[in-house]
Amino acid sequence: MEIITSTTIDTWDRFFRANFINSLTGFKSVNLIGTADASGKTNLGIFSSIVHIGSNPPFIGFINRPVEATPHTIANIRETKFYTINHINATIIEQAHQTSAKYPAEISEFDAVGLTPQFSNGINAPFVKESKLKYALELEEIIPIKLNNTFLVIGRILFVVLEDGITSSRDGYLHLDKAGTLCSNGMDGYYNTELIDRLTYAKPDKKTEKIK
Amino acid sequence: MEIITSTTIDTWDRFFRANFINSLTGFKSVNLIGTADASGKTNLGIFSSIVHIGSNPPFIGFINRPVEATPHTIANIRETKFYTINHINATIIEQAHQTSAKYPAEISEFDAVGLTPQFSNGINAPFVKESKLKYALELEEIIPIKLNNTFLVIGRILFVVLEDGITSSRDGYLHLDKAGTLCSNGMDGYYNTELIDRLTYAKPDKKTEKIK
Repeated sequence: MEIITSTTIDTWDRFFRANFINSLTGFKSVNLIGTADASGKTNLGIFSSIVHIGSNPPFIGFINRPVEATPHTIANIRETKFYTINHINATIIEQAHQTSAKYPAEISEFDAVGLTPQFSNGINAPFVKESKLKYALELEEIIPIKLNNTFLVIGRILFVVLEDGITSSRDGYLHLDKAGTLCSNGMDGYYNTELIDRLTYAKPDKKTEKIK
Repeated sequence: MEIITSTTIDTWDRFFRANFINSLTGFKSVNLIGTADASGKTNLGIFSSIVHIGSNPPFIGFINRPVEATPHTIANIRETKFYTINHINATIIEQAHQTSAKYPAEISEFDAVGLTPQFSNGINAPFVKESKLKYALELEEIIPIKLNNTFLVIGRILFVVLEDGITSSRDGYLHLDKAGTLCSNGMDGYYNTELIDRLTYAKPDKKTEKIK
């Protein structure tokens, strides 16, 4: 085993450190967030900081970098209150990754990278048509993280759009492999997954077992 | 495609809804958080809400459920300021999952599930010896999320303990497969991963390419 201290990490160049620290959190959910401004101009950005906040009511959060670094998504959410989160599958990895380029505000990433905006149920925020599992949210709260000028953006789920056959009719679990959902590592690694096991609800007096 | 509205979700029973909403965020990082109280009594809990906050300084966050639901980890962090985050590999899935059972405060999950506490570099919080990639943090801030009484707990990385050969000497990327790191879905599904591609830094005037 090797021990790497923060003093050593501080000596590394910016990209080496960013790769290392971004990998340390482990495999992550990676998604496209779709928004539009009040005039309807669409924006699409890739985020790997989606986090579960609560199931009832259904709240989902994500971390938005400092406004200088990632201005358009958070500005549109403040303006219109609505946004979409879209799972990424293997057929759109390169387009999804390309949305992280710093395009000027007047260019929609949908056009720039070649993904299709799709509108549903009267929400002004665009979905990604090519995504097989996606949901619309309404902003609940933006919590500033003063430590480094980032933000925790929390929304309430309004509705979910998904292909047939992904939801387990037995218990509500989503078979994400059927949606082709990927995960990521660091800032640029994309991964397929393979189920090992589901385990039963853990109780102190009983050993957990595999769910058949 | 199927549309499921929040009105429908509200009618579902608690477990069906929790499985569905917890899967919606996609594949997630799943980790064991190790703490101790001021007297040295250890605690270990499984968390799938680890999120990257920043690389410089290196800040990592996690969502802690309401204190009634998950009292010991956050109480120990408030008391001692230190904690460890430990990646989970396939050899310890069942033990890791079993830590989610509601053990009384006087029982250490290390003893109850059969994992080995390990101390390093003078930090009073225990690592999981069986984990191949783990790091120690010092508390920076606990941000209450008033919407549902959860908390965003943010720590600064103090040092990282990892097996040789995981860090790319070229660019700092961590080959998590070499650490056996898993990811999870929902509340009880554990997955292996397989690298598809790493992609080059995206720029507006250039198509991203595979990193060889």
